Amino acid sequence: MDSQYVIGIDVGGQTTKLGVVDARGSVLAQTVIRTDTYTDFEPYLDELAGALNKIIADAKAEGKIRGIGVGAPNANYYTGIVDNAVNIPWGANSKIEFAKLLSEKMNGLKVSLTNDANAAAVGEMTYGAARGMKNFIMITLGTGVGSGIVINGNVVYGHDGFAGELGHVSAVRYNGRQCNCGKQGCLETYASATGVARTAREWLEMTDEPSVLRSLDKISSKDVFDAAREGDNLALKIFDFTGNILGRSFADFVAFSAPEAIVLFGGLARAKEFLAKPIMDAMNENLLPIWKGKVALVFSQLKESDAAILGASALAWEL
Amino acid sequence: MDSQYVIGIDVGGQTTKLGVVDARGSVLAQTVIRTDTYTDFEPYLDELAGALNKIIADAKAEGKIRGIGVGAPNANYYTGIVDNAVNIPWGANSKIEFAKLLSEKMNGLKVSLTNDANAAAVGEMTYGAARGMKNFIMITLGTGVGSGIVINGNVVYGHDGFAGELGHVSAVRYNGRQCNCGKQGCLETYASATGVARTAREWLEMTDEPSVLRSLDKISSKDVFDAAREGDNLALKIFDFTGNILGRSFADFVAFSAPEAIVLFGGLARAKEFLAKPIMDAMNENLLPIWKGKVALVFSQLKESDAAILGASALAWEL
Repeated sequence: MDSQYVIGIDVGGQTTKLGVVDARGSVLAQTVIRTDTYTDFEPYLDELAGALNKIIADAKAEGKIRGIGVGAPNANYYTGIVDNAVNIPWGANSKIEFAKLLSEKMNGLKVSLTNDANAAAVGEMTYGAARGMKNFIMITLGTGVGSGIVINGNVVYGHDGFAGELGHVSAVRYNGRQCNCGKQGCLETYASATGVARTAREWLEMTDEPSVLRSLDKISSKDVFDAAREGDNLALKIFDFTGNILGRSFADFVAFSAPEAIVLFGGLARAKEFLAKPIMDAMNENLLPIWKGKVALVFSQLKESDAAILGASALAWEL
Repeated sequence: MDSQYVIGIDVGGQTTKLGVVDARGSVLAQTVIRTDTYTDFEPYLDELAGALNKIIADAKAEGKIRGIGVGAPNANYYTGIVDNAVNIPWGANSKIEFAKLLSEKMNGLKVSLTNDANAAAVGEMTYGAARGMKNFIMITLGTGVGSGIVINGNVVYGHDGFAGELGHVSAVRYNGRQCNCGKQGCLETYASATGVARTAREWLEMTDEPSVLRSLDKISSKDVFDAAREGDNLALKIFDFTGNILGRSFADFVAFSAPEAIVLFGGLARAKEFLAKPIMDAMNENLLPIWKGKVALVFSQLKESDAAILGASALAWEL
């Protein structure tokens, strides 16, 4: 068989991960390029194509690629377009014909595109924590908050291909934080990596509570995580707050599709030791009695880079 | 063919509607019994069976019934159980084996059961405003708020058969109204018929604003509707407030499954003239840019009693 390999590409807010994957789900060659240093799409696409050709050569897979699967924010499965991806410099306020343009650049290789979180959900379902599950919701806690919803074993794309934007439900209804999307109070303004850093900055300013975070110039969610590990009380409270907001939102998601589990993935999900309890407490407190204590919270076990690439690559097998 | 008719039963918080339906969707005979006057299930079931036998006789359909479809609150499609239906006296804090018990009472006729709002969604999809739609969300505004979610032409039942309880998402996150389900701030505490009456009572108490509602002893949502029609300013503001809460919630629902339309049904949906604008304004204000102005709001055109019976009866054809 000629086409025994596929390509998986995960377009994140900061970096783009890409790999060559075989039929057994092994990543044979992979690399990373920056997403956030390009304000225009053209030079980003050039760099991406160059990196793809390099890993194809590394994997000795020239002429044997069946297709390319891409996970990207605000990506439309039906049209192949990345539509106003607010967290990416080249994506905001643009409609990028990502699938078509990448295909042309790669000599006509077929390209299938979906939401990065949908791709991660497919990856978890095929290779990870959601193996065997037919109904679950994948929540990606990265620069933003993404989601992939699986019902009866199928990813939900909706009427227009954009379903599953749970980072933009209202975590706080009135006077919530301003989101890049234009709305106020979106879940991702609180429960993403940037949301956690924002909470830290706000609380340091609003209170006099002592914290090791006060000595830092610029605070990232990683700093808050490190501080929590040292037992810093303010950092611990930030994770309690973040987990509470996530858990309340998850209760609403359960009311929608009655999943057996919520699967968490992404950089912020590494803070499992601080997030799991407040999430579970808030979720169960806000679930209807029929669901209390019955919905699992699962943290992805897959290596983050692999899961994203594997998930995206799974799309390509269907081409 | 012997079994050319089906029965549709819609169990609401106050009344239960039942009818004999033919293959073309005509309701040949129908009647109504009370739901809310029975604290035990047994006497309710006796009354229901008596009413069923009467309409079967009226329709001259003895021996020709293929099966019975039932829509009921907190009903589980997979198990046939009505589980803790908080708005029904015989349903609260009980697990009623509705499908099994009704089948036994009706000499073994097969019974299929689902959420009343799911049944209404099937009715709208088959005979009503959602004909031809593959992705929509049905919201029933009655004593409570129910929902039936259709994705790719299928009703979403979820992992456990209880999916689509959107009346119990948090319309207000903190210090919201106490709901019968035990949570605070549920959508149905604001946007149901009882929620509208509750808003009226609260506002009359909290403000000095003149209103024709002040002269009433006990206020129902119908009273608020009638007052709004007379141009009563407080009543109009109550519908603005209710529509705003609905619209904000609908924006979150769209972020989940990207439907082409939200379909409204039930007693309160008759207040279309007062609800449509505040709902659309609040929904569009809270939608991601990709969806602004693109999601339709549709008010059911079906006669309420027919739609519920037809929807429930559609389940029976699949038996």
